[in-house]
Amino acid sequence: MNHTIASIKPLDERAMAEARRRQDNLTKPQGSLGQLESLSIQVAGIKGNPMPRIVHKVIFTLTGDHGITQEGVSAYPSEVTPQMVYNFLRGGAGINVLARHVGARVVVADLGVASVLERHPDLKDKKVAMGTQNMAKGPAMSREEAIHSIEAGIELMEEELPRGIDIVGTGDMGIGNTTPSSAITAILTGADVMAVTGKGTGLGDEGLKRKVNIIQKALDVNRPDPKDPIDVLSKVGGFEIGGIVGVILAGAKNRIPVVIDGFISGAAALIATSLSPQVKPYLIASHQSAEKGHKVLLEYLGLKPLLNLGLCLGEGTGAALGIFLVEASLKILNEMSTFTEAGVSEKI
Amino acid sequence: MNHTIASIKPLDERAMAEARRRQDNLTKPQGSLGQLESLSIQVAGIKGNPMPRIVHKVIFTLTGDHGITQEGVSAYPSEVTPQMVYNFLRGGAGINVLARHVGARVVVADLGVASVLERHPDLKDKKVAMGTQNMAKGPAMSREEAIHSIEAGIELMEEELPRGIDIVGTGDMGIGNTTPSSAITAILTGADVMAVTGKGTGLGDEGLKRKVNIIQKALDVNRPDPKDPIDVLSKVGGFEIGGIVGVILAGAKNRIPVVIDGFISGAAALIATSLSPQVKPYLIASHQSAEKGHKVLLEYLGLKPLLNLGLCLGEGTGAALGIFLVEASLKILNEMSTFTEAGVSEKI
Repeated sequence: MNHTIASIKPLDERAMAEARRRQDNLTKPQGSLGQLESLSIQVAGIKGNPMPRIVHKVIFTLTGDHGITQEGVSAYPSEVTPQMVYNFLRGGAGINVLARHVGARVVVADLGVASVLERHPDLKDKKVAMGTQNMAKGPAMSREEAIHSIEAGIELMEEELPRGIDIVGTGDMGIGNTTPSSAITAILTGADVMAVTGKGTGLGDEGLKRKVNIIQKALDVNRPDPKDPIDVLSKVGGFEIGGIVGVILAGAKNRIPVVIDGFISGAAALIATSLSPQVKPYLIASHQSAEKGHKVLLEYLGLKPLLNLGLCLGEGTGAALGIFLVEASLKILNEMSTFTEAGVSEKI
Repeated sequence: MNHTIASIKPLDERAMAEARRRQDNLTKPQGSLGQLESLSIQVAGIKGNPMPRIVHKVIFTLTGDHGITQEGVSAYPSEVTPQMVYNFLRGGAGINVLARHVGARVVVADLGVASVLERHPDLKDKKVAMGTQNMAKGPAMSREEAIHSIEAGIELMEEELPRGIDIVGTGDMGIGNTTPSSAITAILTGADVMAVTGKGTGLGDEGLKRKVNIIQKALDVNRPDPKDPIDVLSKVGGFEIGGIVGVILAGAKNRIPVVIDGFISGAAALIATSLSPQVKPYLIASHQSAEKGHKVLLEYLGLKPLLNLGLCLGEGTGAALGIFLVEASLKILNEMSTFTEAGVSEKI
């Protein structure tokens, strides 16, 4: 982990300046493609190439279970986590559909599902433990397990690199995982628990009140240190969240744009950028989720989401759509004619 | 035109109810795909099919010139309009790139460019006149020409139908055409000219002030009747705007979802829905443009844009991205597994 963090470099300013110059000479008024222009320039800087192309797209969908579900913070039972893993492997879930739509491959990994999963050639076994402990009663995991989960995410990326990765999307599945994400967001942004806790996937008003109290209790019991992101991950995090932290760090190290999905990926991004602020320019926020805390989190990170469609499914579904928009931005940069090439007059 | 308007039917409620039922049984929490869910249901209603599919995608990029450019309302000279038509035909413009990205074909038509264009097999000649008249001094066109431009748009759609159209995007190119669009928006929404006039593609503060004054003058000189959308189009409209009105009407008549682009397409949508409110459920707003009046216009129409990326290029570029999202919504509806199929437990 420390080696990966130490290897993260700043973006390539020269490639960005060249990409900016090219955008300004394409047959359109300067700036008229808005965020698509800035996106293409960011990716040029990430890749150190003024006209980068994307061929290989990968979405990492990491899974894990949460001891906190014992407290009734989720509308779905924990058995849904392994059931959804099998759904991913059969190609029937939302992320499978959207990944096919954008031409991305999905890497499914078990970081800490609380049951023994059947072996499958497409399932990466990176299990740290059989789900986290109940964070309302003590730490969700040990410090060693937290580091282990991040390193598992780094390994996942390194193992996929030989197959080609030009862009990465992050995704998650884990019943109960908006609860640790709210806890992480509250600690690392300094916001009130109430301001960053939403109804997850289907709680009512009563359920929401209980969830806020449980999160507050978990923070009181564990007193995570906001200056120590590993402490935060171990005390109130989750294994799939740690895995996503690893994917983000390894993406930045390897100069690969990392398209983050919704609230859970956002919580991982908070931890990753706390470990190293150098990570931030490698991040692209695909969307603003319907989950309440996500807006607070994105504003804290200073990331402007590409979409705001009221999504809150996770799995990497928003990231898949985001990858499509990044590709659009690069095709604009690479394929549009310049004023000179097209014989079009410039501004008066 | 009147025959087309009279043929527009309401959406198919039964297909929508069936699509809603299917969405609620797919392996995700109900509503967790937000606007993608409602989009798929809308398209089911448009097509009268609970599981519609999209194969043939068409973007109509309609072009025309504007006499009002004599008043210095644009940062680019009118000669750019024909130059951009040739750029479209060579495949080097923004719309060509994004249409290729989403697998759509682009139909380029001359509705009223103020110069004689070279013939080209891919250029549809629907020229009504050599550009509009200067609306600051009198009507932009005659009532007959306004109807003619709408009928040209209807013809364009009817001529393309045999090649297959499952979804349509609208687009425009015409130096100066944010000016008539602001005038149309002011009249039909009742908003102040100042509130719906922006800097177009590159005016400064002084230029903006002049543009607002010119639009106000055009409205004072012509006194268009807000209850008569053809009067509005003829007095302060444009030929490509009339053409887009025709595409929208013919789309609704043929039960084809119409993905509208930015401010100019929005002005055409205002006219089309004023001609018949039955048109509205066939419309999908692809994005909210950076052009000031577009937000006012979308709120007036009650349309929630799918994207907000600060685009203001026109040509149908936002519509292309919108078509991708509509396709995503239908693939979710058609391809995701249900809880029963996947053996996933439902809500507790």
